[in-house]
Amino acid sequence: MSGSRRLVVVGGVAAGLSAAARARRMDADLDILVFERTGFCSYSACGLPYLVAGVVPHHTALVARTPEDLGSEGIDVRLHHQVEGVDVAAGRVRVRDLRTSREREEPYDELLLATGGRARLPFPGMDLPGVFLVRTVEDGLAIREWIEVERPERAVIVGGGYIGLEMAEALRTRGLEVTLVELLPHVLPLVDEELAEDVEAELVRVGVDLRRSCPVERVEGNGRVGRVVAGGEAIDATLVVVGVGVSPDNSLAVGAGVPLGAGGAVAVDDGMRARVPNVWAAGDCAETRHRLHDRRSYVPLGTVASKQGRVAAANIAGRAESFAGVVGTAAVKVFDLHVGRTGLSEREAAQAGIDAAAATVVHRSRAHYYPGWTPLKVKLVAERGTGRLLGAQLAGTEGVAKRVDVVAAALHAGATVDELGSFDLSYAPPFAPVWDPLLIAARQAQRQV
Amino acid sequence: MSGSRRLVVVGGVAAGLSAAARARRMDADLDILVFERTGFCSYSACGLPYLVAGVVPHHTALVARTPEDLGSEGIDVRLHHQVEGVDVAAGRVRVRDLRTSREREEPYDELLLATGGRARLPFPGMDLPGVFLVRTVEDGLAIREWIEVERPERAVIVGGGYIGLEMAEALRTRGLEVTLVELLPHVLPLVDEELAEDVEAELVRVGVDLRRSCPVERVEGNGRVGRVVAGGEAIDATLVVVGVGVSPDNSLAVGAGVPLGAGGAVAVDDGMRARVPNVWAAGDCAETRHRLHDRRSYVPLGTVASKQGRVAAANIAGRAESFAGVVGTAAVKVFDLHVGRTGLSEREAAQAGIDAAAATVVHRSRAHYYPGWTPLKVKLVAERGTGRLLGAQLAGTEGVAKRVDVVAAALHAGATVDELGSFDLSYAPPFAPVWDPLLIAARQAQRQV
Repeated sequence: MSGSRRLVVVGGVAAGLSAAARARRMDADLDILVFERTGFCSYSACGLPYLVAGVVPHHTALVARTPEDLGSEGIDVRLHHQVEGVDVAAGRVRVRDLRTSREREEPYDELLLATGGRARLPFPGMDLPGVFLVRTVEDGLAIREWIEVERPERAVIVGGGYIGLEMAEALRTRGLEVTLVELLPHVLPLVDEELAEDVEAELVRVGVDLRRSCPVERVEGNGRVGRVVAGGEAIDATLVVVGVGVSPDNSLAVGAGVPLGAGGAVAVDDGMRARVPNVWAAGDCAETRHRLHDRRSYVPLGTVASKQGRVAAANIAGRAESFAGVVGTAAVKVFDLHVGRTGLSEREAAQAGIDAAAATVVHRSRAHYYPGWTPLKVKLVAERGTGRLLGAQLAGTEGVAKRVDVVAAALHAGATVDELGSFDLSYAPPFAPVWDPLLIAARQAQRQV
Repeated sequence: MSGSRRLVVVGGVAAGLSAAARARRMDADLDILVFERTGFCSYSACGLPYLVAGVVPHHTALVARTPEDLGSEGIDVRLHHQVEGVDVAAGRVRVRDLRTSREREEPYDELLLATGGRARLPFPGMDLPGVFLVRTVEDGLAIREWIEVERPERAVIVGGGYIGLEMAEALRTRGLEVTLVELLPHVLPLVDEELAEDVEAELVRVGVDLRRSCPVERVEGNGRVGRVVAGGEAIDATLVVVGVGVSPDNSLAVGAGVPLGAGGAVAVDDGMRARVPNVWAAGDCAETRHRLHDRRSYVPLGTVASKQGRVAAANIAGRAESFAGVVGTAAVKVFDLHVGRTGLSEREAAQAGIDAAAATVVHRSRAHYYPGWTPLKVKLVAERGTGRLLGAQLAGTEGVAKRVDVVAAALHAGATVDELGSFDLSYAPPFAPVWDPLLIAARQAQRQV
């Protein structure tokens, strides 16, 4: 080991482990040490709602590789280890073994911060038994155990973003009565109102008690959760799941004097270099370049984290690579409704000071005569004057996520709505109408820009 | 009507009617007359296998608009009218009413040839009762009637292209024993061998008797079809469906001295102008610009026909528009297998003289822990040296057609495999793995180019 460079990775989930694995492949001599605070590494946090629902029967299915697997590849992963401080001048981290509470120091030549995000903890009562976040495998297991042992009948979900919506589905699947409480006038703020309304209709259809514009004041209970006080009303609850927005977990960076950027995330260049020598950042703790307005942004998503981790690894291993940036693509399944978005919503375009036009169409997912077609809503956003495509939002019961990706590809290329409207897209009666809903929407948008 | 310009359209299906409808909207004064040889206009030929299968219960579902509908919009459609000659010097067509056999002449100011394709009739015995093409609504109704009245038990399908494969599914659905006879070593020649093999395995799985490298010599029978002689063997058959390749129906153009181009199709510019004043062509009788090698090509598909018809209409109405060209996208459902392709196959790239590399991966259609995932095969073709993406082929049971379209969008933009590999594609466990199979394939292809 003497003489070899040492990479220390803080965080063993998407960004941290995609970086460690690639660095291992690219530089066989690198000494790689990963510290993960929880008892699991290399897990899919996006799978947690499906673990709670029982769709995923056992949590081990969410873990792609165990520390033993990684050890055999030459990646040393230490679970239950929390890095508590970084001395960037000395090139050392201070790390605590959470099981023994013992602290020690470990030197590094390169340090990758992949500390992820942390939930904003917005109201009193969060520490009552029966109140859960959905961040770690432990969270998922704890919710599942609470359901199986305590048999709660009424759940309140705080937050109508991706995780809140997926948890609403999971808890209804488990037979609970579900109230979903959203601070804003609509759920899923990353889509515009006319798409959010489809999600809200789906929630109501499956019997979710939806409360919008409803700020949570506190959670109350006698030794365990009993009710949520929100919008001036007390809502009975024997299980509370908090799925509010994520902030970058930047405490290590702040403590070490590593400069922050967009949304409080670690400021990085396109090579994922922080503004301190030999320090890198990737994933939910790092900022991101947004291709649509070319500004640093904060986009905490697993896809972005994995890509950033790979780019960091290449640069650490000495091969120059740049992160291509995001266009803001995401998708979610809410009961039978699939919703996806990419680029800028109409609201985001306005916030970015772009003069945007929008067109919304509802068209069939398959040929009109082919059984099983369902309505597909497509909203396109484009820049007035230039016709430059800015974004798309789709909702329907099939063919949503990958149609969103067609627009994501068009956004990567800087296409106009005219160009999108001329795309040679596939057609067969079971898959699409002869004019794909994207093409219909593009034609509609051409008239607006 | 005096003083108004007159557009005569020959052919009332995809290209002809998309042109007529748009010309109507763009020029309220235009006198529009459409001649259609069959008894139906504005129908989906791609729906015919589903009519035969019974998935579409009634043929009227395949007809988007009747002559009455179109008449009320100011489009005069004459069914059972065959245009038999064009006098381009005089600006007149000679048209025969097939029900009365009477001929007359009709003047035009603008003439759009949308005569479509015609099946190559490759062997003796095609005229025996029980032998059918799959081109018109009448063909579909005749096959259905033959099945219901004659109760054939054994069918032979000649040709393993899109229509042959869809008809194999349709006839198995109707309970017939099916033999599929293909001249070439593999079915579906628009995809490379490793994808065609998946289709062949699916055919075998559902009990289709597949004969490859098997040239049909003739169809025989005593007053009606009794057997197909192919590959030196007699195959019993009481129903024969011929789905061999389509050629442009260029007889009118040839007779009128309108120059031909790629594959014997009418030569056109990007505005769909033929090389004779006031004559236009669109759809399966017209050539097409292929964006991948920028050569005129022959791509007889409904999507292309509809787009070309719209472009022709704009130019006829005086608004300059160019057809953006095709990238060669198509998809087909073969029983439970979905297959799609776009761009150039490895074989086509070689034929075009391009030094191409390819990468084929098999990956999951959803997150590995999400139930119901199935294997998805992705083959990417790219130019060696430049890394320019040339094409993709996919096969699987879900998420195929629109993933093909993601690559189609990338091809429209002239993207490299590096760029495809960096695309910000959507992710949620029910829709895709965190690394979409397209991204995995792109990474694999990066190593080959």
